[in-house]
Amino acid sequence: MVELVTFGEAMLRLSPPAGERLETAGELRCRVGGAESNVAVAGARLGLETAWLSKLPDSPLGRRVQTALRKHGTDPRIVWAEEGRQGTYYLERGARPRASRVVYDRENTPIQTARPEELDTDAIERAECFLTTGITPALSERLFETTESLLGTETLTAFDLNYREKLWTAAEAKRAYEELLPAVDLLFAPERDVRSVLGYEGEPEALAMRLRERFDCETVVLTRGPDGALARTREETVEQSAVSAETVDPVGTGDAFVGGYLSRALSGASVARSLAYGAATAALKRTIAGDAAVVTQSDVEAVLEEKTAEIQR
Amino acid sequence: MVELVTFGEAMLRLSPPAGERLETAGELRCRVGGAESNVAVAGARLGLETAWLSKLPDSPLGRRVQTALRKHGTDPRIVWAEEGRQGTYYLERGARPRASRVVYDRENTPIQTARPEELDTDAIERAECFLTTGITPALSERLFETTESLLGTETLTAFDLNYREKLWTAAEAKRAYEELLPAVDLLFAPERDVRSVLGYEGEPEALAMRLRERFDCETVVLTRGPDGALARTREETVEQSAVSAETVDPVGTGDAFVGGYLSRALSGASVARSLAYGAATAALKRTIAGDAAVVTQSDVEAVLEEKTAEIQR
Amino acid sequence: MVELVTFGEAMLRLSPPAGERLETAGELRCRVGGAESNVAVAGARLGLETAWLSKLPDSPLGRRVQTALRKHGTDPRIVWAEEGRQGTYYLERGARPRASRVVYDRENTPIQTARPEELDTDAIERAECFLTTGITPALSERLFETTESLLGTETLTAFDLNYREKLWTAAEAKRAYEELLPAVDLLFAPERDVRSVLGYEGEPEALAMRLRERFDCETVVLTRGPDGALARTREETVEQSAVSAETVDPVGTGDAFVGGYLSRALSGASVARSLAYGAATAALKRTIAGDAAVVTQSDVEAVLEEKTAEIQR
Amino acid sequence: MVELVTFGEAMLRLSPPAGERLETAGELRCRVGGAESNVAVAGARLGLETAWLSKLPDSPLGRRVQTALRKHGTDPRIVWAEEGRQGTYYLERGARPRASRVVYDRENTPIQTARPEELDTDAIERAECFLTTGITPALSERLFETTESLLGTETLTAFDLNYREKLWTAAEAKRAYEELLPAVDLLFAPERDVRSVLGYEGEPEALAMRLRERFDCETVVLTRGPDGALARTREETVEQSAVSAETVDPVGTGDAFVGGYLSRALSGASVARSLAYGAATAALKRTIAGDAAVVTQSDVEAVLEEKTAEIQR
Amino acid sequence: MVELVTFGEAMLRLSPPAGERLETAGELRCRVGGAESNVAVAGARLGLETAWLSKLPDSPLGRRVQTALRKHGTDPRIVWAEEGRQGTYYLERGARPRASRVVYDRENTPIQTARPEELDTDAIERAECFLTTGITPALSERLFETTESLLGTETLTAFDLNYREKLWTAAEAKRAYEELLPAVDLLFAPERDVRSVLGYEGEPEALAMRLRERFDCETVVLTRGPDGALARTREETVEQSAVSAETVDPVGTGDAFVGGYLSRALSGASVARSLAYGAATAALKRTIAGDAAVVTQSDVEAVLEEKTAEIQR
Amino acid sequence: MVELVTFGEAMLRLSPPAGERLETAGELRCRVGGAESNVAVAGARLGLETAWLSKLPDSPLGRRVQTALRKHGTDPRIVWAEEGRQGTYYLERGARPRASRVVYDRENTPIQTARPEELDTDAIERAECFLTTGITPALSERLFETTESLLGTETLTAFDLNYREKLWTAAEAKRAYEELLPAVDLLFAPERDVRSVLGYEGEPEALAMRLRERFDCETVVLTRGPDGALARTREETVEQSAVSAETVDPVGTGDAFVGGYLSRALSGASVARSLAYGAATAALKRTIAGDAAVVTQSDVEAVLEEKTAEIQR
Repeated sequence: MVELVTFGEAMLRLSPPAGERLETAGELRCRVGGAESNVAVAGARLGLETAWLSKLPDSPLGRRVQTALRKHGTDPRIVWAEEGRQGTYYLERGARPRASRVVYDRENTPIQTARPEELDTDAIERAECFLTTGITPALSERLFETTESLLGTETLTAFDLNYREKLWTAAEAKRAYEELLPAVDLLFAPERDVRSVLGYEGEPEALAMRLRERFDCETVVLTRGPDGALARTREETVEQSAVSAETVDPVGTGDAFVGGYLSRALSGASVARSLAYGAATAALKRTIAGDAAVVTQSDVEAVLEEKTAEIQR
Repeated sequence: MVELVTFGEAMLRLSPPAGERLETAGELRCRVGGAESNVAVAGARLGLETAWLSKLPDSPLGRRVQTALRKHGTDPRIVWAEEGRQGTYYLERGARPRASRVVYDRENTPIQTARPEELDTDAIERAECFLTTGITPALSERLFETTESLLGTETLTAFDLNYREKLWTAAEAKRAYEELLPAVDLLFAPERDVRSVLGYEGEPEALAMRLRERFDCETVVLTRGPDGALARTREETVEQSAVSAETVDPVGTGDAFVGGYLSRALSGASVARSLAYGAATAALKRTIAGDAAVVTQSDVEAVLEEKTAEIQR
Repeated sequence: MVELVTFGEAMLRLSPPAGERLETAGELRCRVGGAESNVAVAGARLGLETAWLSKLPDSPLGRRVQTALRKHGTDPRIVWAEEGRQGTYYLERGARPRASRVVYDRENTPIQTARPEELDTDAIERAECFLTTGITPALSERLFETTESLLGTETLTAFDLNYREKLWTAAEAKRAYEELLPAVDLLFAPERDVRSVLGYEGEPEALAMRLRERFDCETVVLTRGPDGALARTREETVEQSAVSAETVDPVGTGDAFVGGYLSRALSGASVARSLAYGAATAALKRTIAGDAAVVTQSDVEAVLEEKTAEIQR
Repeated sequence: MVELVTFGEAMLRLSPPAGERLETAGELRCRVGGAESNVAVAGARLGLETAWLSKLPDSPLGRRVQTALRKHGTDPRIVWAEEGRQGTYYLERGARPRASRVVYDRENTPIQTARPEELDTDAIERAECFLTTGITPALSERLFETTESLLGTETLTAFDLNYREKLWTAAEAKRAYEELLPAVDLLFAPERDVRSVLGYEGEPEALAMRLRERFDCETVVLTRGPDGALARTREETVEQSAVSAETVDPVGTGDAFVGGYLSRALSGASVARSLAYGAATAALKRTIAGDAAVVTQSDVEAVLEEKTAEIQR
Repeated sequence: MVELVTFGEAMLRLSPPAGERLETAGELRCRVGGAESNVAVAGARLGLETAWLSKLPDSPLGRRVQTALRKHGTDPRIVWAEEGRQGTYYLERGARPRASRVVYDRENTPIQTARPEELDTDAIERAECFLTTGITPALSERLFETTESLLGTETLTAFDLNYREKLWTAAEAKRAYEELLPAVDLLFAPERDVRSVLGYEGEPEALAMRLRERFDCETVVLTRGPDGALARTREETVEQSAVSAETVDPVGTGDAFVGGYLSRALSGASVARSLAYGAATAALKRTIAGDAAVVTQSDVEAVLEEKTAEIQR
Repeated sequence: MVELVTFGEAMLRLSPPAGERLETAGELRCRVGGAESNVAVAGARLGLETAWLSKLPDSPLGRRVQTALRKHGTDPRIVWAEEGRQGTYYLERGARPRASRVVYDRENTPIQTARPEELDTDAIERAECFLTTGITPALSERLFETTESLLGTETLTAFDLNYREKLWTAAEAKRAYEELLPAVDLLFAPERDVRSVLGYEGEPEALAMRLRERFDCETVVLTRGPDGALARTREETVEQSAVSAETVDPVGTGDAFVGGYLSRALSGASVARSLAYGAATAALKRTIAGDAAVVTQSDVEAVLEEKTAEIQR
């Protein structure tokens, strides 16, 4: 039985080698990534049965996305569109003081027309948890409506704000969040977005509490980058520090956190254990090239147990 | 002074290594190609002053196109669009019986909105020759009109039919050709397109003669793939056999032919010499990876002189 | 419901670039291959629900095999061994007169201890077809017995002789074949093995008929390399010529044939149609690097319809 | 109109991958670099019209240099030598405590015979600024004289000491500097060279003042590596701290500084603004593989505005 | 005359690119490594005549090991086994908090059957020093006996504890060490192994003294990772701090230390000089990809003289 | 004891990937090659004890040559020059009708100053055979004299004409050959050079006989490319047809022939057997990238026995 169903877009991700720029690089590494599929992959690798719903063009490029996700053990349930293009993004890895740069090329992709009737909503109904993120409703008016409809399920709903300034303005995002969040049970909220998009102020715990109350969530997990994370439930506030990591590739870190958290929370672990799992999974992801958290439970546990030999041999 | 001005779109070209499929390849080679820029590059490398007119997004990807063309010595005169995406195509190299496959991803690109007023039409007026191909008017209604307008110049106009079945139907193309060709002085017509799109029948010479009369062209060059080429002017019919070549990459062969032909014809060479140059340039292009004919005049002349040592040392 | 279940070993396949030798190459391409998993992959890609049974070490290398197969849509049902090594083979691509060379490194791998009780034999019982090949019983005494036991199923059984001289002598193989084949319904028999291992002589059709009678098979498909294939059923002999192909990688050609054949035969197609599908799939496989037939039904049909444009664009 | 003309040699630069040594690496990355062409490239990328004068062999290797520079938008005005070799340097990237190592292979290259009459001195006369560096006169007696002659122009002259101990001794360099510097208007002087080659002592400001007076320069820019830079004009001393950067490739950092400085100074910016631009361009260069500062004005401005998001998306 | 003879196994070493995991990487870098061959290589590169004794399969893979070692100037004296497999290890480079991981695949390799009579024991007798490490006796019962026998030589014997927890338990290792060490003259003892395997406690100097007395060694060199090293002879205790290094590849660091130490000690240098050489060689090794310390004497001396320019040019 | 000593220059060989041109390729494969070292390598790999005499710069590049040759089992006896550059050549692989192209960059290399006194002439005296080729005397006046002096040895002398038109004119070469050949015992003479440089005419056998008589050689081996080879001794004429091969890399084919021939001839095999070995080694070399014939005796014998399976498994 599928435990976690996610819904969103996955793109081809094209990136030049470290130290090379998009303008001049001769080879691009082609991978696949997208917030919701990243969560499904991390969840699957850490023991959940997961499925990912999406709509893709019926082309070699669309099939590439299917192939890339299937290999990590998540089940892509794809509506194949006869027409349309495959969403793509270009990622140029930076080095201080040059920021990593994303060039989105995701206009007019099939998912932007996805209606609930097309999607495997039965899978959502039968799952333990349904997740999508703030990227999906940002992609089209149609998708905002579809997201809203899917969040109406009886299943436990999870949502990550995931604000992207290249997709919509803060004001647009705020309006959408305010319409969608009342239907959300488990909210992952980057502190940065809470402040700059929702305009909240105050101590982290206060932010989480305010979100919880305002949108009537069961649990709010405030993700705070290098400052760790903090979860607020009805009963308690649990804090988790970040696990320090050497950054090979920062993209997908937040999704790995969510996938790691859910892999425990949906298996009945405590909030504290789930947060710790999330933090360790996120740290491991930073050390791995690509959006996908190519990890196993034993990798995560080695981090939690602080096994620190330089080489295991 | 610019001798040859071309107008059209150049795309990023993403291709997996030989023997790998788009669906699974990890690395994509990123190059730049487009029929009209390919002709400008071949012309520049063979001694012409050339410029290429286009409209591109002001992004690292758009600048990549500029960079890639500039290095071959053509002068890209680009209208930079604040918005819009960079056209792209994916090229999977085949091997018999698997055909090479092109996946276009060129919807909604800035050039589709290009109006004559934006473009450096002065350059066209002052040039010796202006060239575009049948790909350009296929991209949008707006571009059809722009093409028509640009072909109204006093400058010698050249046009390659370049029919692409993934861009429009044969019937649409035929209608467009019939409107545009009366303004064309020098027509490059793939025999295949003449038969399957324009619906002509008969011997090659007859095809060329009929095209010449029907559209009142000065010269018609019928390109016949492995069967060579045939030019028809007012005075004469000149035939040229193809130069046999080992195919490393067939894309751009026709453009190399046109660039090679023009490099001589615009320098006052005979039709026969121009055809021979075109055929040799096309053969060399087949041996080189990428759309661009990375050749020199001395390379072309070595082919014409049949210098056939396995190694020059 | 799973339609085709296969059983066997899949190995890491390590190969130097073309023109480089194992003795000196700096980079090895790492892929995954094995006769029975190759058949499951080809079948899955051409529309069958397939599963692959095996036993692998619970290590990053064993998981790599799982990952690599899962991406092509077959379902690996693996018994994870706590101990033991991952089978590996090194493949050096030749060029005439230098033969391609395989160095097996598959001693003491977990599958050599696989007993029927460990395996998902229910899947076999519920499937439409169960396939293994002559490689499996060659790997260990234990595996010979397991193979024999699995072939005792009520399900339609298929078997490919697949003689490998680096695994056992012709005499050993002959003895094993003679014990196993009476339980086989659908036999794929390379003509070369029929002659050199089983010692049969005569015309191809006679070979197939003799095999069919001797082992009481429903159908015998004699595979004849560049000479095509020939199937003998109770009613008829059907011949199929080979589809000429440029060879990028010959490994897995036979498995692609079998997978292509089964994808039609198990869907109710005629023997002639199944043979044609097998031949086209095999030809496509030759043009693709790696053991896996990375093809789609539309690729196969393009070959059958002889669509021969050099580039599809 | 060309604003900045530089003169010097550009070499092929061959470098093994990080962590590999010249003695054993199988692949060498081939790029193009040279102090004066690096400055022209950085200037062109940051908005100046630039040209680069040189003399190269008429060979594929010489044309490679032309191609590589042209793509960045500078205009190579090359005297093509019928004979002679292309200068080359091998660069092995170090890692503490192993220093990066340069092996020059630039003997007997055509530029060593370059006489002023061959070069496009008109371009120098019409430009706003002419730049060369201390590497050029170190290459041959003939080049010392040519450098001296070119610095005799009415155009604003700029010079970077650029002492290279593998090309000449400190004593030889000192003698040459003392002959050439009186003709220089804008001097870029690495503090290290001022101390170890010219033998000056004292505080940085004192060094700059002494240089300014001794050689009657308009402006002296003392470059101080991690300690930043300091400019001394008639009126003022301006200090600039270094912009901290992760080093992907240190080669060309100084040239990027000079190009960045000139891009502003020649456009009328203040010394302070020019220094800041230089420092930011230098920091960006350190994050990019190759000699060329593949940057845009908006990249530089993002550094100056300290936009510090880890990813821009 | 051979000065240093070592005995042990060398394996193929297969490693994915940085940031990639064994489970998903497409390309593996193939090198050769093994503790005793690493010491022989470092010694040879730093001026010793060295030979390495081993037993390998007579296959392209075995020859690859021979080729790889020969190029560094050590003389591989190999017993070629008609049967058997080439030992291999997979190395996945980590990044904090993900440890580097070694997957050994070295079961049933020919060396495990090596008897003294097969080996070139004359070379040992005539050498100045014979070295093996604790890895060798861990590989098989037979090899324990062979190691014991070879250490019975009159030649100066050196031994590095080199405990590997994937090969045997601490208890097994302890028992073996206690039998072998009385025959050892020069002992290299990682402090970590002394504590966790031999169970010693106390200050570093006390550990070294206790080892020296217990096993009657001439010299004990305690290697302490980032804390440097400490040698204890009859007369003195000499301490050496570690040379700080950027880590490109940590594998082989200890072997480089031993090779560097021996290169001086066997040439008559003082213990202090030998330790310094060892520490510098080890630091350089960390900056170089692969097991082999691809260094020269002048590289080592540049480290010892703290030549710290970022680039030597 | 060394059986074969060769003398000549080995260069770095830098080549772009297939289908790429020197003018634009980003990566160059770095190998080592030179006619005389190629012969020594082929000889060593086929069982001879060989040594190669040369003079190289004491630099990482010179050591790279040493390393590259040592790995194939030949013994480089190098005079290390304190100054001077490493010879290099660029090789661009062609494809019909584009010829492969060599760009030499070998001016002013240390070997051009090599005097007999510096070289290990004892090794020549004690060897069974000494070989050099027509490339060596073409490099400098000094080398012509050194070659002449070395050929004065009592040892059996072998010489390959190896005319290179980029090094000297046919007239110059002819004069040199005429002075040197009287000292040669075993002459390898490309038919092409015999005709175009020496100006001989007639049937192949007549050419060989005339050379033998004119220069008083013991044996003349006329190498005829695709037409095979022909040896003329006092007693007989032996003909050998070429072994057909797929060409991966044609460079070094002739040297592989010579090395294969000598490996048998110096072991006492017949001229016919030696020719066959040479032809098979040459064919194998064509299938392997790089100058070196990376082959074994069993590879050669498989060709001679026409083992023609597509895959050995």
